[in-house]
Amino acid sequence: MTAAELKTATVTTPTDRTIHIEREFDAPRDLVFATFTNPDLIPEWWGPRGTTTEVDVMDVRTGGDWRFIAHDADGTQTAFRGTYREVTPPERVVQTFEWEGMPGYVSLETATFEDLGDRTKVTTVGVYYSTEERDGMLGSGMEGGMNETFQRLDELLARLV
Amino acid sequence: MTAAELKTATVTTPTDRTIHIEREFDAPRDLVFATFTNPDLIPEWWGPRGTTTEVDVMDVRTGGDWRFIAHDADGTQTAFRGTYREVTPPERVVQTFEWEGMPGYVSLETATFEDLGDRTKVTTVGVYYSTEERDGMLGSGMEGGMNETFQRLDELLARLV
Repeated sequence: MTAAELKTATVTTPTDRTIHIEREFDAPRDLVFATFTNPDLIPEWWGPRGTTTEVDVMDVRTGGDWRFIAHDADGTQTAFRGTYREVTPPERVVQTFEWEGMPGYVSLETATFEDLGDRTKVTTVGVYYSTEERDGMLGSGMEGGMNETFQRLDELLARLV
Repeated sequence: MTAAELKTATVTTPTDRTIHIEREFDAPRDLVFATFTNPDLIPEWWGPRGTTTEVDVMDVRTGGDWRFIAHDADGTQTAFRGTYREVTPPERVVQTFEWEGMPGYVSLETATFEDLGDRTKVTTVGVYYSTEERDGMLGSGMEGGMNETFQRLDELLARLV
């Protein structure tokens, strides 16, 4: 893989309680949307390299719950969970997001999938209850993990296209 | 019961995303705290008159979940749920709150119990992701239901004191 292929997401903080993330993928929108919403595809890309993600619950509809268990290479595991507030294929998913290591620290994540023909722009806006909670997420190493995760998704999409 | 006994809570909106509620109870703090955190006492007061509340889950500790099922007099039922972010007896409980009729609309509720001797002041601050969500809660008839609920709690505390 060349350096040009290692794209990074654009992360900005347009307000004091939000994280705005943009990333383009070289695949059509229906396929990118499927990778976010098909339980069989989540283990193929979700989480940084070395992580094996198990879909415990993934009821992709308004009001459905989701819960993923992430197994690290060293055997430790942790879990993430939330509820789908809106699922509008292939355009938008709105869901809550909570890491079980910090229970009750719930954010609201809106993912929008924009059709660019052979490519798709995914914009994710996370809203937090406070600036402190937003900054906690920014300081958690989230950005590096996200870029690895999205590079794994690039590789999956290349296999699927 | 005289009119003087029908106290109402003070509801204010100090910021564009919060609801601030204050209410005094004629009972010592340990007892008031117990009514909020003891699963056996919740069915005695939680919900407007005519509602029978069943505690489905109530794991009162940091990271524990809660879920209450409210049965109306006409047989309909609805549920509420969340996670305890902090439980500090007898001073403070921080928890998420979600009505299952609007899944994903999660608020963060901080209840503070202030010792006034024979009385206790309970302050609850609810934080929402947006003004729109906060105003949705204010427009839901929440205030009337809350005042009935707190009057039921007055009656329970009078029996327990």
